[in-house]
Amino acid sequence: MNAFMDKDFLLDTECAKKLFHEYAEAMPICDYHCHLSPQEIYENKQPENISQLWLAGDHYKWRAMRSAGIAERYCTGNASPKKKFEQFAAVLPYCIGNPLYHWAHLELQRYFGIDTPLNAKTADDIYKRANKAIKEGDFRPQSLIRNSNVKIVCTTDDPIDDLQYHQLLAEQDLGFQVLPTFRPDKALNIENNGFKEYVKQLAKLTKINIEAAGDIVSALLKRANYFHERGCRISDQAFEYVPFGDISLAEKAFAKVMKGKELTQEEIDGYKTFVMQNLGSKYAALGWVMEIHIGAIRNNNTKMFGALGPDTGFDSVGDAEIAKPLSRFLDSLCREDCLPKTILFNLNDKDNTVLATMLGNFQSSEAQSKIQFGPAWWFLDTMDGMTAQLKALGNLGVLGKFVGMETDSRSFTSYARHEYFRRILCRLLGRWIEDGWYAYDEDTVKEIIEGICYRNAVTYFNFE
Amino acid sequence: MNAFMDKDFLLDTECAKKLFHEYAEAMPICDYHCHLSPQEIYENKQPENISQLWLAGDHYKWRAMRSAGIAERYCTGNASPKKKFEQFAAVLPYCIGNPLYHWAHLELQRYFGIDTPLNAKTADDIYKRANKAIKEGDFRPQSLIRNSNVKIVCTTDDPIDDLQYHQLLAEQDLGFQVLPTFRPDKALNIENNGFKEYVKQLAKLTKINIEAAGDIVSALLKRANYFHERGCRISDQAFEYVPFGDISLAEKAFAKVMKGKELTQEEIDGYKTFVMQNLGSKYAALGWVMEIHIGAIRNNNTKMFGALGPDTGFDSVGDAEIAKPLSRFLDSLCREDCLPKTILFNLNDKDNTVLATMLGNFQSSEAQSKIQFGPAWWFLDTMDGMTAQLKALGNLGVLGKFVGMETDSRSFTSYARHEYFRRILCRLLGRWIEDGWYAYDEDTVKEIIEGICYRNAVTYFNFE
Amino acid sequence: MNAFMDKDFLLDTECAKKLFHEYAEAMPICDYHCHLSPQEIYENKQPENISQLWLAGDHYKWRAMRSAGIAERYCTGNASPKKKFEQFAAVLPYCIGNPLYHWAHLELQRYFGIDTPLNAKTADDIYKRANKAIKEGDFRPQSLIRNSNVKIVCTTDDPIDDLQYHQLLAEQDLGFQVLPTFRPDKALNIENNGFKEYVKQLAKLTKINIEAAGDIVSALLKRANYFHERGCRISDQAFEYVPFGDISLAEKAFAKVMKGKELTQEEIDGYKTFVMQNLGSKYAALGWVMEIHIGAIRNNNTKMFGALGPDTGFDSVGDAEIAKPLSRFLDSLCREDCLPKTILFNLNDKDNTVLATMLGNFQSSEAQSKIQFGPAWWFLDTMDGMTAQLKALGNLGVLGKFVGMETDSRSFTSYARHEYFRRILCRLLGRWIEDGWYAYDEDTVKEIIEGICYRNAVTYFNFE
Repeated sequence: MNAFMDKDFLLDTECAKKLFHEYAEAMPICDYHCHLSPQEIYENKQPENISQLWLAGDHYKWRAMRSAGIAERYCTGNASPKKKFEQFAAVLPYCIGNPLYHWAHLELQRYFGIDTPLNAKTADDIYKRANKAIKEGDFRPQSLIRNSNVKIVCTTDDPIDDLQYHQLLAEQDLGFQVLPTFRPDKALNIENNGFKEYVKQLAKLTKINIEAAGDIVSALLKRANYFHERGCRISDQAFEYVPFGDISLAEKAFAKVMKGKELTQEEIDGYKTFVMQNLGSKYAALGWVMEIHIGAIRNNNTKMFGALGPDTGFDSVGDAEIAKPLSRFLDSLCREDCLPKTILFNLNDKDNTVLATMLGNFQSSEAQSKIQFGPAWWFLDTMDGMTAQLKALGNLGVLGKFVGMETDSRSFTSYARHEYFRRILCRLLGRWIEDGWYAYDEDTVKEIIEGICYRNAVTYFNFE
Repeated sequence: MNAFMDKDFLLDTECAKKLFHEYAEAMPICDYHCHLSPQEIYENKQPENISQLWLAGDHYKWRAMRSAGIAERYCTGNASPKKKFEQFAAVLPYCIGNPLYHWAHLELQRYFGIDTPLNAKTADDIYKRANKAIKEGDFRPQSLIRNSNVKIVCTTDDPIDDLQYHQLLAEQDLGFQVLPTFRPDKALNIENNGFKEYVKQLAKLTKINIEAAGDIVSALLKRANYFHERGCRISDQAFEYVPFGDISLAEKAFAKVMKGKELTQEEIDGYKTFVMQNLGSKYAALGWVMEIHIGAIRNNNTKMFGALGPDTGFDSVGDAEIAKPLSRFLDSLCREDCLPKTILFNLNDKDNTVLATMLGNFQSSEAQSKIQFGPAWWFLDTMDGMTAQLKALGNLGVLGKFVGMETDSRSFTSYARHEYFRRILCRLLGRWIEDGWYAYDEDTVKEIIEGICYRNAVTYFNFE
Repeated sequence: MNAFMDKDFLLDTECAKKLFHEYAEAMPICDYHCHLSPQEIYENKQPENISQLWLAGDHYKWRAMRSAGIAERYCTGNASPKKKFEQFAAVLPYCIGNPLYHWAHLELQRYFGIDTPLNAKTADDIYKRANKAIKEGDFRPQSLIRNSNVKIVCTTDDPIDDLQYHQLLAEQDLGFQVLPTFRPDKALNIENNGFKEYVKQLAKLTKINIEAAGDIVSALLKRANYFHERGCRISDQAFEYVPFGDISLAEKAFAKVMKGKELTQEEIDGYKTFVMQNLGSKYAALGWVMEIHIGAIRNNNTKMFGALGPDTGFDSVGDAEIAKPLSRFLDSLCREDCLPKTILFNLNDKDNTVLATMLGNFQSSEAQSKIQFGPAWWFLDTMDGMTAQLKALGNLGVLGKFVGMETDSRSFTSYARHEYFRRILCRLLGRWIEDGWYAYDEDTVKEIIEGICYRNAVTYFNFE
C-alpha cells in the first residue's frame, strides 16, 4: 500500500515522478481565471481561524456537508467556527473519491504542515494545530499568494467596477500581478430581473444615454477601454447555453424589456448575439482573450436562493446542445476577421469531444492554439475530469500548446489545485512515455511540461 | 494469467480482496427495486430445468441471441428447452465483454456449483449437470431469495394492484420481507392507448368518479394510502424524458383525451407535471422515497411489439435533454417543502454528470444524501457503467452515503448482480486506498463498504 | 521504460502479444469504407516525395499544424515540399496523445523502414531517407494497397459517377478488389445550394424527367442497379443529425425548392425521410449494407470554406439528439420488412450508449449482428475512441460478431490504422483474458480475433 498522499501522490511511474519533481513542481503559477476579491487581497487581513479560511465562503464544502445530511447552521449558519470545522471533518471521510478530500489534505500539508488525515477523531487536534499555525504564521492573502509561487492573478470583474483595488494593488510591489477580467454577464442577461437597474448604472457611469441595444454596446466598449488601461487582457462570459440568434431582433428586444415586456427566446438570443458579436470584435481589436464558460445552470433551489443568494452551492450542470450555435457564433466573428483568441470551457464532460474538435475549425497563425480548450473546471475539476480533458485535447488538438490550469476559486489556499493538476498531467504523460507511446526527448518533454504548467499561458495572454 | 472468475474475480489489489472478503461479501441484500412477481414468490414453484429458469423470461439473453443471428424460435419461440439452452451456450463466448457473460458464470457457480465455462462444447454436459442440481436441490423462488441472503425485496406494482400476494406473503415467516412499490406510470402516460381504459379501472376500484385530472390524483392518493398500509415505502416512475410543463393545462389535457382528441406535447407535459407534483407531495407526506428512472425508449420495434408485447428486449437508451426540466420539477416541490427523498436513475451514461450534480441542489438534513444518484441500471449495469456511476458520485457527491445496488431484475438468480456490484465497488475503493489516495482507517472503510452494500439503504428507506 | 513503439506497442500483457502476433497481425484487410480515389488507384502514380504522399491532401495533418499556429502556406499553400515537411515535423512532438503521432510513426516504420522519432531535429534526415526510400522503392497506390495485405477496398462514390475507373480496375488482376459504394448525399441534401443543379445532372444521366421527389427516387434506384452491376454492395450516407419527418411533405418540399423557395425544417426532414425510406427498401432488396455516418458538422469556417472548399480540415463534432428519430426511421423500414443490414456510426462518443443499444432493437436471424455498431471513426479514431467503442459494443452487444475496422481515409499509407486498431483490440481482449474475466479457449479466441480483424466483415458484406 502506498503511503497516503506523500510526495509522490498520483505519480505512478518513474517518468511521472521525474516530470513532476524536476519540471512541473517548481514552475510559477499564472492563475488566469479566479474569483478572488481584489479588495480582500488589498486589505490583506490575517484570518482568525481555519474555519474562517476554509468554511466561511466555500460552497464546495457546504455542498458536501449538506449532501451528508449536515444542517445548514453548520454550513452558512451561526454555529461556532469550531463546530463547523468538526462537522466538516466528520463528513470528509465519506467524501471518498471527491476532489475536496484531496484538496483539503493538500492544503493541510502545504499551508499548515499537517500530515494527519482529517476526520471526526482528529478534528479537535487538527483544529488546534491549524489555528496555532495561523496564529504564529502569516496567512494573509498576499502572503498565501506569494508563497504559492503565483506570478499573475486574474480576478473576475463587472464592467461597472471602478477597479480601485486593482489600482491600489498595482501601486504596490507585491511580487505578483493582480489584473482585472471583464465579465459583462449582467449586460448580456437581458432576461434577468436586475437588467433595467444595471442599464441605469452603466449609463450613469459611462455618461452614455442608453436608449438602445447599440448604446449598451457603446457603453461596454467604453468600459473595455477603461479596463484595458488598467491591465485587463481577458474577458469572460458565462453561458448557460450558447445563444446564437438573429441580431436584427436586438433593438426590439431591448425596447421591449425596457418597457417591462416579456421577451421571446428568439429575442433574447438575438440581443445576446448582437452584444457578443460587438464585444468579440472589440476583444480582438484590443488583443484580449475571450473566455466562454458554458453549461452551468445556476440557483436551482429557489428557496435557498431566497435565503442565501447566488454562489452558495445550488448550481449544477446543464446539457443543452451547443455545437451548432457555438460554431455559428465563432464563425460570425471569424468571417469578419474579428475573432479574438478564445478559450472554450465546458461544464458537462459530454461536451469534451464537441469543444475539442470545435477549436480546430478556427485556428490560425495569430497564436499557438489560438482557440483553446479550457481546463476541466468547477464540477469537472477532479482527477477524472482533468484526465478526460487532457485526453480529449491530446486526441483532438495539440496538447503541447495548452495554456493549462486556473483555479476558478474564491479561496486563497486553493493554489493546491494547480499542484493537483500538475500531478495529474505528469501522471498521464509519464505513463504514455513509460509505455513507449511517446519518444522521450528531455528537452521537448521539459518544454511541454513547463509550457502547460506556466509558460504557454504567459505567452498566450501576452503577460511576458 | 489469473484463473477464470475465481474467488478474487475483479479484485486486483490486496486491499480490494480484504474489502470484499472481510466486509462486503457477507452483508445481507436489500433489493429495493426489482420486477419479481409476488405471485411467483408466493406460489414458490420449483423450475423444471435451467432453460425455464434462465431463458423463459430474460430479455437480456434473448437480445444477445438475436444479436448473434439466432432465430426467434430459440428465444421466445417453441424450440425445446434443451435446444434453447444450446443456442444460448453457443452464443455466450461471443458476448466477450458483456455482463451477461459474467452473470451467467456467476450464477452457474453460485447456484449450481458449476465452474466450467459455458460454450457450444460444454452445453450438453452443463445442461445435464444444472438440471440434476435443480432436480436434487431446492430452486424454488423463496429458497433462492433466502439463500442469497436477501432480507428485503421491493417489487414493482401498479396502483390498481390489490397486493393480494403481498398480503399472503406478509402472513408467512419467509426470513425476508416482500414489499410493494407504487408505480403509477399508466396513470401518467396520458398519451398512451390504454389510458382511458386504465382510468375506468382506477375509478371502479377507488369508487371515485374520475372526471378531471384532479380526480385521477385523488384516486392515486387513495391507492397510495392503500399501498402504505401494506408496507409500501417507495414509489417508482419511468420517464422517457423529464416532463415539466404548465400545470394549468392539465385539466384541458384530461378533458381532451377523454373525448378521444390528440394532445399537444405541452398538454401532455402539463398533465404529467400536475400529477407528479401532487404525487411527489404525497410521497413526502408519507415519508416515501420517490424513484425516477429516466431515459428508456421502449418498444422500438413495432413488429416485434405486436408479436411479443412489452419487456421482450426491444428497448434502448434515449438522449433527451434532462437537466432543466428535472431541476424545475424538483424545485417546484422543494419550494413548497414537499420534496420527498428521491433517487434519480439515468439510463444514458452521458447524463452521469448532470444527475450527480443535480443531487447537490436539493440536499437537506432530513436524510443523509436525501437526494441519491441511483446505481447503474439496466444497460449500464456493467463493469464500466457501475464504475462510471461510482466515480461520478465520488467526484460530485458523497459516495460514503450511497444506498447502493438493486437488481431491477425479473430473475430469481439475479442476486449475483449484487456480488458483481460489490466486487466492482471493492475493486475501485481498494485501488484508491492501495494507491495512497485515501487514508486507510479500518473502522471507516468497514462502515463505508457495509453501508453501501446494505446498511445505508436500510437506513434511508426506514426499513430498520 | 518500454522501447518507443516497438513490436509490442500497446500490447501490455502476454496474452495481448499472443493475440496480436499469432492471430491479428497476419490477417488480410477488408477496408469496407474509405475515400480513396479509384482514378488515383488506376493511374497508379509513384509519389515524388513524402510531402506529396503525406501532406498534399491530409486534413488531419493540416489541422494539427494550424492548431500549433503554423501558417496556411505550409498546409495547403505554396511553400516547398521540404518546408512543409519541416513544419509538420516540428509540430509533431507537441501532438502528444494524438493518433497522428502514432499514425505518422507507424507509417514511417512500416512503409519507409524508419524507426527514428520525427521532430524538428530529425526532420531533415528523415526527409532525405524517406525520399530515398520512395525513389528506390515502389510507393505506387496499387503496391501500397497490395503490400498492406488489403483484399478489398470500398471507395465512396456519387450516384452520378459512371464508375469508369472501377470498371478499368475490375479488368486488371490487382490481387485486391476495388468496389464502389453508393453515397447519395447530394440527392438527400435538398437544403444545399447545389441541389437543383444536381437534380439536373441526375435527370440527364438517367434519362428520367425529374419533376417530383418520386422521380428522384426512381432515378436513384436506377443508379443503384447500375452500381450493383458493377459490384457495389454498400451504401453510405452522412447525416449531420438524423432526419425523421412526415413523408407526406416530400413532394411539397421538392416543388418549393425547384421554384427557389426556402424550406421549413419539417419539409426538409419529410423529403429526406421519404427518399431514405425508398433507398433503404431498395438496399434491402439488393442485399446491400446501409452505412449511416452520424454527427459531423461540416465547413464550420465560412472564410476557409470559400478559400479551400470542403474536406480541408474545418469540420467538427455535433451534438444533436439522435435516439428517437433513428429509432423511428429504422422501425419504419423494419415494420415493412425492408430494413437492410445496417451499420451505425457516431462521431460523438456521447452517443456510444445510444447506438450500441439501438442495434438490439432491430437484430434478426438474417445475419449475425445484422445491425452493427460501426468502428470509432474520424475524430474518434483514437486509442480512447476505439477502446470506448469496443467496450460499448462489448457491454451492450455481441462484440464477437463485430465487422471491425475501416480506414475512412484519403491516404494510401493509412492502412497503419488497421494495425493500430488491431493492437488496441488485442490489448483490450488480452487484458480481459489475463485478468480472468474471460475463459481462455484457443479456438474461440482465435476465431473472435480473426473474425473482428477480417472474416466477420467478409461474411457480413457477402464478399466471400
